[in-house]
Amino acid sequence: MSDRQYPGFFMTVEGGEGAGKTTNIAYIKEWLTTHNVEFVHTREPGGTPLAENIRELLLAKTDEAIAEKAELLLVFAARAQHLDQVIIPALQAGKVVLCDRFTDATYAYQGAGRGLNKTDIATLEGLVQGSLRPDLTLLLDLPVAAGMARVNQRGDLDRFEQEAMTFFERVREGYLERAAMFENQYAIVDASQSLEGVQADIGVILQNRLSAYAGE
Amino acid sequence: MSDRQYPGFFMTVEGGEGAGKTTNIAYIKEWLTTHNVEFVHTREPGGTPLAENIRELLLAKTDEAIAEKAELLLVFAARAQHLDQVIIPALQAGKVVLCDRFTDATYAYQGAGRGLNKTDIATLEGLVQGSLRPDLTLLLDLPVAAGMARVNQRGDLDRFEQEAMTFFERVREGYLERAAMFENQYAIVDASQSLEGVQADIGVILQNRLSAYAGE
Repeated sequence: MSDRQYPGFFMTVEGGEGAGKTTNIAYIKEWLTTHNVEFVHTREPGGTPLAENIRELLLAKTDEAIAEKAELLLVFAARAQHLDQVIIPALQAGKVVLCDRFTDATYAYQGAGRGLNKTDIATLEGLVQGSLRPDLTLLLDLPVAAGMARVNQRGDLDRFEQEAMTFFERVREGYLERAAMFENQYAIVDASQSLEGVQADIGVILQNRLSAYAGE
Repeated sequence: MSDRQYPGFFMTVEGGEGAGKTTNIAYIKEWLTTHNVEFVHTREPGGTPLAENIRELLLAKTDEAIAEKAELLLVFAARAQHLDQVIIPALQAGKVVLCDRFTDATYAYQGAGRGLNKTDIATLEGLVQGSLRPDLTLLLDLPVAAGMARVNQRGDLDRFEQEAMTFFERVREGYLERAAMFENQYAIVDASQSLEGVQADIGVILQNRLSAYAGE
């Protein structure tokens, strides 16, 4: 909170497969609405027409292998556009920005998960964001096996799923490492609880951090 | 030439409006063919399907203003892909790469011409290229008024063209500054001469720099 540049509040939600990100973002929106908080809900990669076009280039299935650095530069190009067109104007206007994934996901998925160079990620983070970081990152944390069981609705994993598990383990470790490094930014929610338990925890965090933005 | 990483030779051609880049690249290709030099001809931005898709995003006319950093990141994303898929494999195979514009154009057009942050350009150049730089940049240099007269085929300029002139003056100065900074990389050709004079100069440069790559 020390070097906040804007009157608004920048909140991101992160988490692996099956952690309940979609459900809990819906809950957060409901909380914000109930408390008369002016907010903008957006997502990465994407959030503007150009950024969505870049997202399509990233997700397209083609014969051309995408170079690691090209991928990182596209991710951050979309992010630069998203910041310029959506996030920063909303923060300047004093709004809460609720963003589904942000740069922490780049560190976790591309960096920890797929082994892309973290120094490159940090270089691009600095170039694109300057000193802007989320005021709050809500990390929905869940053991990987529990997340995959929720997604799959069954217990036994085939070889492909086993490989996916080691990938998602690295992603989870990546998130937890960042949460340990940036304690003031992160709030870890134990997503292995019942949905009621998860949402009670989220409600306490929102009350603590966002009551200044609540209307009458 | 001191820290050449690859057996091939990386040649770029730069120049402003009306400097005869297209005509002279055709002449260079003819020279390379006549001298049995194995070469790859390519262009920026573009050079691979993904990079061409990025080029389209950069050139598209839309209502959404493109953020300066997003633009730079897209330029370098296309460049990273182009290097990975086309330029570096050709250099590794010992070929001559003849590239129509490269990073020097980013410094001249986006940097000097449009005022985008040169430190950002340098950061991205380092991230994407490491220490790779062109072995030879052929700069077709021409006073801006002469270039615009060639393009327009007439002498008097309206207000829009006057504004364009000051832009192209900055671009030309940007190129000439870089040529002064990187003397070993640059060969400046006086493009105000007759085509025969220009091509005689280019022929001498190619003979000096590329005879090692000529076949029997």
